[in-house]
Amino acid sequence: MLKDLPLSKVYQLLEPGPVVLLTTARRGRANVMTMSWHMMVEFEPPLVACVVSGNNYSFAALRATKECVIAIPALKLAQIVADIGNCSGRDVDKFERFGLMPKPAARVKPPLIAGCFANLECKVADTCLVNQYNLFILEVLKAWIDPAQKNPKTIHHHGYGKFAVDGRLIKLRSKMR
Amino acid sequence: MLKDLPLSKVYQLLEPGPVVLLTTARRGRANVMTMSWHMMVEFEPPLVACVVSGNNYSFAALRATKECVIAIPALKLAQIVADIGNCSGRDVDKFERFGLMPKPAARVKPPLIAGCFANLECKVADTCLVNQYNLFILEVLKAWIDPAQKNPKTIHHHGYGKFAVDGRLIKLRSKMR
Repeated sequence: MLKDLPLSKVYQLLEPGPVVLLTTARRGRANVMTMSWHMMVEFEPPLVACVVSGNNYSFAALRATKECVIAIPALKLAQIVADIGNCSGRDVDKFERFGLMPKPAARVKPPLIAGCFANLECKVADTCLVNQYNLFILEVLKAWIDPAQKNPKTIHHHGYGKFAVDGRLIKLRSKMR
Repeated sequence: MLKDLPLSKVYQLLEPGPVVLLTTARRGRANVMTMSWHMMVEFEPPLVACVVSGNNYSFAALRATKECVIAIPALKLAQIVADIGNCSGRDVDKFERFGLMPKPAARVKPPLIAGCFANLECKVADTCLVNQYNLFILEVLKAWIDPAQKNPKTIHHHGYGKFAVDGRLIKLRSKMR
Protein backbone atom coordinates (compact mmCIF):
# COMPACT_ATOMS: atom_id res chain seq x y z
CA MET A 1 0.00 0.00 0.00
CA LEU A 2 1.67 3.21 -1.15
CA LYS A 3 1.49 6.29 1.04
CA ASP A 4 1.61 10.02 0.32
CA LEU A 5 4.97 11.70 0.79
CA PRO A 6 4.92 15.47 1.38
CA LEU A 7 6.45 17.28 -1.58
CA SER A 8 8.82 19.10 0.78
CA LYS A 9 10.64 15.78 1.36
CA VAL A 10 11.16 14.80 -2.27
CA TYR A 11 14.67 16.27 -2.45
CA GLN A 12 15.81 13.86 0.27
CA LEU A 13 15.15 10.99 -2.12
CA LEU A 14 16.94 12.34 -5.18
CA GLU A 15 19.74 14.46 -3.72
CA PRO A 16 21.77 11.32 -2.82
CA GLY A 17 21.99 10.46 -6.53
CA PRO A 18 20.41 6.99 -6.78
CA VAL A 19 19.81 5.15 -10.02
CA VAL A 20 16.12 5.59 -10.83
CA LEU A 21 13.57 4.27 -13.29
CA LEU A 22 11.60 6.61 -15.53
CA THR A 23 8.21 5.52 -16.81
CA THR A 24 6.38 7.09 -19.73
CA ALA A 25 3.16 6.24 -21.55
CA ARG A 26 2.22 6.90 -25.12
CA ARG A 27 -0.57 5.58 -27.31
CA GLY A 28 -1.80 3.38 -24.48
CA ARG A 29 1.56 1.69 -23.91
CA ALA A 30 3.84 2.19 -20.94
CA ASN A 31 7.61 2.05 -21.09
CA VAL A 32 10.42 2.32 -18.58
CA MET A 33 14.10 3.24 -18.72
CA THR A 34 17.01 3.34 -16.29
CA MET A 35 18.38 6.80 -15.51
CA SER A 36 21.25 8.22 -13.48
CA TRP A 37 21.57 11.70 -14.91
CA HIS A 38 19.20 13.69 -12.72
CA MET A 39 19.45 16.33 -10.00
CA MET A 40 17.27 18.51 -7.79
CA VAL A 41 16.72 22.08 -8.99
CA GLU A 42 14.28 23.44 -6.39
CA PHE A 43 12.95 22.26 -3.02
CA GLU A 44 9.26 23.12 -3.29
CA PRO A 45 7.47 22.77 -5.51
CA PRO A 46 10.12 20.16 -6.25
CA LEU A 47 11.85 20.69 -9.58
CA VAL A 48 14.12 18.02 -11.00
CA ALA A 49 16.40 18.20 -14.02
CA CYS A 50 17.17 15.06 -16.01
CA VAL A 51 18.88 14.10 -19.24
CA VAL A 52 17.16 11.56 -21.47
CA SER A 53 19.21 10.74 -24.52
CA GLY A 54 17.60 11.01 -27.91
CA ASN A 55 18.68 7.39 -28.40
CA ASN A 56 16.28 6.30 -25.67
CA TYR A 57 12.88 5.23 -26.87
CA SER A 58 11.49 7.15 -23.86
CA PHE A 59 12.75 10.46 -25.23
CA ALA A 60 10.00 10.92 -27.82
CA ALA A 61 7.29 9.86 -25.35
CA LEU A 62 8.52 12.28 -22.70
CA ARG A 63 8.80 15.14 -25.16
CA ALA A 64 5.38 14.48 -26.69
CA THR A 65 3.33 13.70 -23.58
CA LYS A 66 5.25 15.88 -21.10
CA GLU A 67 4.60 13.38 -18.32
CA CYS A 68 6.63 10.74 -16.50
CA VAL A 69 7.06 8.95 -13.21
CA ILE A 70 10.42 8.68 -11.46
CA ALA A 71 10.43 5.40 -9.55
CA ILE A 72 13.25 4.69 -7.10
CA PRO A 73 14.32 1.07 -6.77
CA ALA A 74 16.13 -0.44 -3.81
CA LEU A 75 18.98 -2.95 -4.00
CA LYS A 76 16.71 -5.97 -4.43
CA LEU A 77 15.77 -4.71 -7.91
CA ALA A 78 19.37 -4.02 -8.97
CA GLN A 79 19.72 -6.67 -11.67
CA ILE A 80 16.31 -5.81 -13.13
CA VAL A 81 17.33 -2.14 -13.17
CA ALA A 82 20.48 -3.03 -15.13
CA ASP A 83 18.49 -5.27 -17.48
CA ILE A 84 15.95 -2.49 -18.10
CA GLY A 85 18.87 -0.30 -19.14
CA ASN A 86 20.03 -2.90 -21.62
CA CYS A 87 16.99 -3.27 -23.83
CA SER A 88 14.68 -0.86 -25.61
CA GLY A 89 10.94 -0.27 -25.47
CA ARG A 90 11.15 -0.30 -29.26
CA ASP A 91 11.62 -4.07 -29.08
CA VAL A 92 10.00 -5.29 -25.88
CA ASP A 93 7.29 -4.58 -23.35
CA LYS A 94 9.59 -4.11 -20.38
CA PHE A 95 6.80 -4.24 -17.81
CA GLU A 96 5.89 -7.68 -19.04
CA ARG A 97 9.41 -8.96 -19.57
CA PHE A 98 10.60 -7.98 -16.10
CA GLY A 99 7.38 -8.66 -14.23
CA LEU A 100 7.08 -5.05 -13.10
CA MET A 101 3.76 -4.20 -11.49
CA PRO A 102 2.38 -0.99 -12.96
CA LYS A 103 0.00 0.95 -10.74
CA PRO A 104 -2.15 3.84 -11.92
CA ALA A 105 -0.77 7.24 -10.94
CA ALA A 106 -3.05 9.95 -9.57
CA ARG A 107 -2.00 12.94 -11.66
CA VAL A 108 -0.30 11.56 -14.77
CA LYS A 109 -0.79 8.76 -17.31
CA PRO A 110 2.56 6.93 -16.92
CA PRO A 111 2.32 4.22 -14.25
CA LEU A 112 3.91 3.94 -10.85
CA ILE A 113 6.04 0.85 -10.24
CA ALA A 114 4.73 -0.99 -7.21
CA GLY A 115 8.01 -2.67 -6.30
CA CYS A 116 9.90 0.62 -5.98
CA PHE A 117 10.10 2.23 -2.55
CA ALA A 118 9.27 5.70 -3.93
CA ASN A 119 7.38 7.02 -6.95
CA LEU A 120 7.29 10.64 -8.12
CA GLU A 121 4.61 11.77 -10.55
CA CYS A 122 6.07 14.48 -12.78
CA LYS A 123 5.13 16.86 -15.56
CA VAL A 124 7.64 18.55 -17.83
CA ALA A 125 7.95 22.14 -16.64
CA ASP A 126 10.55 23.50 -19.05
CA THR A 127 11.87 22.26 -22.38
CA CYS A 128 14.20 25.07 -23.35
CA LEU A 129 17.33 22.88 -23.01
CA VAL A 130 15.82 19.79 -24.61
CA ASN A 131 16.99 20.46 -28.14
CA GLN A 132 20.54 21.29 -27.19
CA TYR A 133 21.24 18.93 -24.27
CA ASN A 134 18.24 16.55 -24.00
CA LEU A 135 17.76 18.20 -20.59
CA PHE A 136 14.24 18.31 -19.18
CA ILE A 137 13.07 20.30 -16.17
CA LEU A 138 10.36 18.32 -14.35
CA GLU A 139 7.98 19.39 -11.63
CA VAL A 140 7.00 16.71 -9.12
CA LEU A 141 3.22 16.87 -8.71
CA LYS A 142 2.71 14.01 -6.28
CA ALA A 143 5.01 11.68 -4.36
CA TRP A 144 4.45 8.20 -2.93
CA ILE A 145 6.47 5.95 -0.67
CA ASP A 146 6.09 2.32 0.27
CA PRO A 147 6.15 2.27 4.07
CA ALA A 148 6.81 -1.48 3.99
CA GLN A 149 10.31 -0.86 2.64
CA LYS A 150 12.25 0.41 5.66
CA ASN A 151 15.65 2.07 5.18
CA PRO A 152 15.95 1.04 1.55
CA LYS A 153 19.48 0.83 0.18
CA THR A 154 19.81 2.52 -3.20
CA ILE A 155 22.37 1.88 -5.92
CA HIS A 156 24.67 4.37 -7.64
CA HIS A 157 26.15 3.70 -11.07
CA HIS A 158 29.91 3.96 -11.51
CA GLY A 159 29.83 2.90 -15.16
CA TYR A 160 29.92 -0.42 -17.01
CA GLY A 161 27.55 -2.21 -14.65
CA LYS A 162 29.49 -1.36 -11.49
CA PHE A 163 27.27 0.03 -8.74
CA ALA A 164 27.95 1.29 -5.23
CA VAL A 165 25.32 0.18 -2.74
CA ASP A 166 24.46 2.50 0.14
CA GLY A 167 26.41 1.57 3.23
CA ARG A 168 26.02 3.05 6.67
CA LEU A 169 24.20 6.30 7.38
CA ILE A 170 26.11 8.92 9.34
CA LYS A 171 24.77 12.03 11.05
CA LEU A 172 27.04 15.06 11.09
CA ARG A 173 26.49 18.33 12.87
CA SER A 174 24.96 20.53 10.19
CA LYS A 175 22.53 23.36 9.68
CA MET A 176 21.99 22.34 6.05
CA ARG A 177 18.49 21.46 4.99
CA MET B 1 50.88 13.94 -6.46
CA LEU B 2 47.78 14.41 -8.60
CA LYS B 3 47.51 12.55 -11.88
CA ASP B 4 45.66 13.25 -15.11
CA LEU B 5 42.31 11.53 -15.56
CA PRO B 6 41.07 11.11 -19.15
CA LEU B 7 38.00 13.26 -19.74
CA SER B 8 36.11 10.20 -20.98
CA LYS B 9 36.10 8.87 -17.39
CA VAL B 10 34.76 11.96 -15.66
CA TYR B 11 31.14 10.78 -15.72
CA GLN B 12 32.10 7.76 -13.60
CA LEU B 13 32.96 10.14 -10.77
CA LEU B 14 29.82 12.28 -10.83
CA GLU B 15 27.12 9.88 -12.04
CA PRO B 16 26.97 8.16 -8.60
CA GLY B 17 25.81 11.47 -7.06
CA PRO B 18 28.43 12.23 -4.40
CA VAL B 19 28.52 15.39 -2.34
CA VAL B 20 31.18 17.61 -3.90
CA LEU B 21 32.99 20.85 -3.16
CA LEU B 22 32.94 23.74 -5.61
CA THR B 23 35.78 26.24 -5.59
CA THR B 24 35.66 29.69 -7.14
CA ALA B 25 38.07 32.63 -7.18
CA ARG B 26 37.34 36.29 -7.46
CA ARG B 27 39.42 39.38 -6.86
CA GLY B 28 42.33 37.22 -5.81
CA ARG B 29 40.38 35.33 -3.17
CA ALA B 30 39.32 31.69 -3.33
CA ASN B 31 36.13 30.32 -1.84
CA VAL B 32 34.55 26.90 -1.54
CA MET B 33 31.01 25.60 -1.06
CA THR B 34 29.39 22.21 -0.55
CA MET B 35 27.13 21.04 -3.38
CA SER B 36 24.85 18.07 -4.03
CA TRP B 37 22.68 19.37 -6.85
CA HIS B 38 24.68 18.34 -9.90
CA MET B 39 24.40 15.80 -12.73
CA MET B 40 26.15 14.70 -15.89
CA VAL B 41 24.78 16.11 -19.15
CA GLU B 42 27.22 14.72 -21.72
CA PHE B 43 30.02 12.14 -21.72
CA GLU B 44 32.68 13.87 -23.78
CA PRO B 45 33.54 16.59 -23.68
CA PRO B 46 32.09 16.17 -20.22
CA LEU B 47 29.25 18.55 -19.51
CA VAL B 48 27.88 18.89 -15.99
CA ALA B 49 24.82 20.75 -14.80
CA CYS B 50 24.70 22.19 -11.29
CA VAL B 51 22.49 24.45 -9.23
CA VAL B 52 24.16 27.12 -7.11
CA SER B 53 21.66 29.07 -5.07
CA GLY B 54 21.71 32.83 -5.28
CA ASN B 55 22.06 32.77 -1.49
CA ASN B 56 25.48 31.18 -1.83
CA TYR B 57 28.38 33.61 -1.86
CA SER B 58 29.85 31.46 -4.64
CA PHE B 59 26.99 32.28 -6.99
CA ALA B 60 28.22 35.76 -7.91
CA ALA B 61 31.80 34.56 -8.37
CA LEU B 62 30.72 31.69 -10.61
CA ARG B 63 28.50 33.92 -12.70
CA ALA B 64 31.10 36.66 -13.04
CA THR B 65 34.26 34.60 -13.61
CA LYS B 66 32.64 31.61 -15.37
CA GLU B 67 35.17 29.26 -13.81
CA CYS B 68 35.15 26.72 -10.99
CA VAL B 69 36.67 23.49 -9.78
CA ILE B 70 34.56 20.54 -8.66
CA ALA B 71 36.53 18.69 -5.98
CA ILE B 72 35.28 15.31 -4.78
CA PRO B 73 35.94 14.49 -1.13
CA ALA B 74 36.06 11.02 0.37
CA LEU B 75 34.58 10.00 3.71
CA LYS B 76 37.54 11.22 5.76
CA LEU B 77 36.61 14.82 4.89
CA ALA B 78 32.91 14.37 5.72
CA GLN B 79 32.71 16.63 8.76
CA ILE B 80 34.74 19.35 7.02
CA VAL B 81 32.40 19.08 4.03
CA ALA B 82 29.39 19.61 6.30
CA ASP B 83 31.13 22.49 8.08
CA ILE B 84 31.96 24.15 4.74
CA GLY B 85 28.25 24.00 3.96
CA ASN B 86 27.41 25.74 7.21
CA CYS B 87 29.35 28.96 6.86
CA SER B 88 29.73 31.57 4.15
CA GLY B 89 32.67 32.95 2.24
CA ARG B 90 31.17 36.34 3.04
CA ASP B 91 32.35 35.90 6.62
CA VAL B 92 35.35 33.59 6.60
CA ASP B 93 38.24 32.36 4.52
CA LYS B 94 37.16 28.73 4.38
CA PHE B 95 40.48 27.46 3.04
CA GLU B 96 42.19 28.88 6.11
CA ARG B 97 39.52 27.92 8.62
CA PHE B 98 39.36 24.31 7.52
CA GLY B 99 43.03 23.85 6.67
CA LEU B 100 42.26 23.02 3.04
CA MET B 101 45.29 22.88 0.79
CA PRO B 102 44.66 24.86 -2.38
CA LYS B 103 46.70 23.82 -5.40
CA PRO B 104 46.95 25.82 -8.62
CA ALA B 105 44.78 24.47 -11.43
CA ALA B 106 46.12 24.18 -14.97
CA ARG B 107 43.30 25.77 -16.95
CA VAL B 108 41.29 27.92 -14.51
CA LYS B 109 41.93 30.35 -11.65
CA PRO B 110 39.95 28.62 -8.87
CA PRO B 111 42.18 26.21 -6.95
CA LEU B 112 42.15 22.45 -6.73
CA ILE B 113 41.79 20.96 -3.24
CA ALA B 114 44.72 18.65 -2.57
CA GLY B 115 42.92 16.46 -0.02
CA CYS B 116 40.14 15.51 -2.44
CA PHE B 117 40.53 12.32 -4.47
CA ALA B 118 39.38 14.00 -7.70
CA ASN B 119 39.38 17.55 -9.03
CA LEU B 120 37.62 18.76 -12.17
CA GLU B 121 38.56 22.09 -13.73
CA CYS B 122 35.47 23.64 -15.29
CA LYS B 123 34.31 26.61 -17.30
CA VAL B 124 30.72 27.74 -17.56
CA ALA B 125 29.46 26.63 -20.96
CA ASP B 126 25.86 27.83 -20.85
CA THR B 127 24.06 30.34 -18.64
CA CYS B 128 20.61 30.36 -20.20
CA LEU B 129 18.96 28.74 -17.15
CA VAL B 130 20.91 30.74 -14.56
CA ASN B 131 18.40 33.53 -14.11
CA GLN B 132 15.39 31.27 -13.79
CA TYR B 133 16.79 28.25 -11.92
CA ASN B 134 20.38 29.13 -10.85
CA LEU B 135 21.33 26.25 -13.13
CA PHE B 136 24.76 26.35 -14.75
CA ILE B 137 26.03 24.10 -17.53
CA LEU B 138 29.74 23.46 -17.01
CA GLU B 139 32.32 21.94 -19.31
CA VAL B 140 35.09 19.95 -17.66
CA LEU B 141 38.37 21.08 -19.22
CA LYS B 142 40.79 18.98 -17.21
CA ALA B 143 40.47 16.26 -14.60
CA TRP B 144 42.81 15.07 -11.86
CA ILE B 145 42.81 12.15 -9.49
CA ASP B 146 44.92 11.33 -6.47
CA PRO B 147 46.22 7.81 -7.07
CA ALA B 148 47.13 7.52 -3.39
CA GLN B 149 43.44 7.39 -2.46
CA LYS B 150 42.37 3.90 -3.50
CA ASN B 151 38.67 3.03 -3.71
CA PRO B 152 37.52 6.22 -2.02
CA LYS B 153 34.13 6.06 -0.32
CA THR B 154 31.99 9.08 -1.15
CA ILE B 155 29.11 10.54 0.84
CA HIS B 156 25.55 11.26 -0.33
CA HIS B 157 23.36 13.81 1.43
CA HIS B 158 19.92 12.72 2.62
CA GLY B 159 19.10 16.07 4.21
CA TYR B 160 19.68 17.65 7.61
CA GLY B 161 23.24 16.39 7.99
CA LYS B 162 22.38 12.74 7.33
CA PHE B 163 24.69 11.13 4.78
CA ALA B 164 24.86 7.68 3.23
CA VAL B 165 28.41 6.40 2.87
CA ASP B 166 29.23 4.16 -0.08
CA GLY B 167 29.05 0.54 0.92
CA ARG B 168 30.03 -2.43 -1.19
CA LEU B 169 30.53 -2.29 -4.95
CA ILE B 170 28.57 -4.78 -7.02
CA LYS B 171 29.06 -5.75 -10.64
CA LEU B 172 25.95 -6.61 -12.64
CA ARG B 173 25.74 -7.93 -16.15
CA SER B 174 25.22 -4.81 -18.24
CA LYS B 175 25.97 -3.30 -21.59
CA MET B 176 25.53 0.22 -20.20
CA ARG B 177 28.47 2.55 -20.43
